[in-house]
Amino acid sequence: MVSSKDVAKLAGVSQATVSRVLNTPELVKKPTLEKVQRAINDLNYIPNAQARSLVQNKSRTIALLSGPLHNPFFVDTTTAIVNYASQMDYRIQVQFVNDLKLNDAYTIALEHKVDGIILSCILKDDPIFEKLKRMNVPFITYNRKHQHNEFFVEIDNYEAGYLSAKHMIDQGHKLIAWIGGPQNFSTFHHRFEGFSQALKDHEIMLDEKYIFNTDTTSADISASFYKLMKRDNPPTAICAGSDSLALNTIDSAIRIGLVIPKDISIIGIDNVDLSSHGSIQLTTVGSVSGKNLGYLAIEKLIDMIENKNNGCVKITEPVKIFPRSTTSKYKTNF
Amino acid sequence: MVSSKDVAKLAGVSQATVSRVLNTPELVKKPTLEKVQRAINDLNYIPNAQARSLVQNKSRTIALLSGPLHNPFFVDTTTAIVNYASQMDYRIQVQFVNDLKLNDAYTIALEHKVDGIILSCILKDDPIFEKLKRMNVPFITYNRKHQHNEFFVEIDNYEAGYLSAKHMIDQGHKLIAWIGGPQNFSTFHHRFEGFSQALKDHEIMLDEKYIFNTDTTSADISASFYKLMKRDNPPTAICAGSDSLALNTIDSAIRIGLVIPKDISIIGIDNVDLSSHGSIQLTTVGSVSGKNLGYLAIEKLIDMIENKNNGCVKITEPVKIFPRSTTSKYKTNF
Repeated sequence: MVSSKDVAKLAGVSQATVSRVLNTPELVKKPTLEKVQRAINDLNYIPNAQARSLVQNKSRTIALLSGPLHNPFFVDTTTAIVNYASQMDYRIQVQFVNDLKLNDAYTIALEHKVDGIILSCILKDDPIFEKLKRMNVPFITYNRKHQHNEFFVEIDNYEAGYLSAKHMIDQGHKLIAWIGGPQNFSTFHHRFEGFSQALKDHEIMLDEKYIFNTDTTSADISASFYKLMKRDNPPTAICAGSDSLALNTIDSAIRIGLVIPKDISIIGIDNVDLSSHGSIQLTTVGSVSGKNLGYLAIEKLIDMIENKNNGCVKITEPVKIFPRSTTSKYKTNF
Repeated sequence: MVSSKDVAKLAGVSQATVSRVLNTPELVKKPTLEKVQRAINDLNYIPNAQARSLVQNKSRTIALLSGPLHNPFFVDTTTAIVNYASQMDYRIQVQFVNDLKLNDAYTIALEHKVDGIILSCILKDDPIFEKLKRMNVPFITYNRKHQHNEFFVEIDNYEAGYLSAKHMIDQGHKLIAWIGGPQNFSTFHHRFEGFSQALKDHEIMLDEKYIFNTDTTSADISASFYKLMKRDNPPTAICAGSDSLALNTIDSAIRIGLVIPKDISIIGIDNVDLSSHGSIQLTTVGSVSGKNLGYLAIEKLIDMIENKNNGCVKITEPVKIFPRSTTSKYKTNF
């Protein structure tokens, strides 16, 4: 690779002058500036930002620990995070985290010098939270949050679960099932709490046989759905813990010949971009502002890195129903 | 941040000993090893891989220049690339490239020391190709390729275009439109060539009024589709240049009340994961092997970085039709 030494030689100046052209061009005389710039172009020299960043003790790199892209929520957030970071001249080092290998992911992220960490994968009681605070690396969680209630951007998950159940109750449904995810994720935990409370408030019994907290793999979601539909009284409505779970459930339903919403109503939570596609038209709950959680989080993180924000970020976005075509009024067969 | 100096102090050894524990633990006596490891754990010390990599002249970082994730093709490839790289202990630095700002993307990728570059965004006549070769950084393109026909992984784009048109012809369609993308991308260029040749071979006139090479934005795709449907003789079938274009076209069709495939048949190319979802069921053309192009490319790139492969990678995957539910036989109205 071409070095600044080569540039200095070709331009007939010292390496220090090349360095000044790169870092403080306004202080370099015009003829020298032009000579060095010509040499840089001729040699196709690209300054080694890594060496520079080591000196400055800044890497301009942020580690992103995201959930997998087969969940369309992370398609939207990853896009927003990477694009905003690029625009602010930060590089994103991305990992798609498998919840079983969380610790490996943290080690990899921290092993390389990063200016900050943005993560969706925190558990409610994750010990990494204390570790990150002790290490003094700016970090923020989006979607999920830690039980310490600090440095997070989320939607109002409790209200989202409540509204999704209430939507089904308002449509006349009485046998309402829940297909959710692990209860050590703040999202699924609070969404399920809201769902349960709505049923209680409307005097609908919460029957364990209609509750499935899956591991969010499509195999487990399908299996849960088929178990539900084999009950003597199958549900007429399903509240899914996320749009991703709802889309998987819809796929499973179509595969056994069910027509949605005629045979069964299904609602999601998140309002991902894909949910409004003409072929999908998923009824869901999402943030009122329509702001992307990834965008909100990376914006705050970069403020923290650049010391523009010394407070503790705690953002909970209000939510509302987005009624589309996967839910309908309950009809009796009589 | 904790440094190796702090570890040395706590363990009561020299910094050189800490370094030996990290790099050649098999050469360190057991009591010393344990003492240093305890100090590492107590202080929560994470070795600075960046400083180490500068010395070793390896960053174990690969730059990924990908198309945007609203195109589901890049959802599948980004997942495959990031996951395989993580597994092989490489970090991926990702940018989602806007074709109008290609040069900025290359500068950002090269400015930071990377061991290799994997990119989907190359143009047929892109001058970056020569530049990358001169710089001696291992690189590979996936999906699109450069006209020099080197270092690429693609599907057989010509055959894909040919098969998609032939599928419509076999179903009895005669008014077949094309909605594609920029002709300086090898993908759209060769797919369109194959499409045109199939029409010619079956003596169907290629009418310019039925050909739209869009800029791949959803606004331009919708506008092209609506122009097509306003013709005196609207097409009965549309061959889209990619699944992403097909999904956008389907969305536009549903928005004006059309039913697919009753009112119009639509076929894509790529066979993205999303295309087989129950709500989508997109007929498309994809690789016979089902291998992900991103996976094939990152595997070869890491081989190149590690000198396991000194040849020039040229992979063209054979393709076939995946018939699903968005195309049907042509029916006359008489």
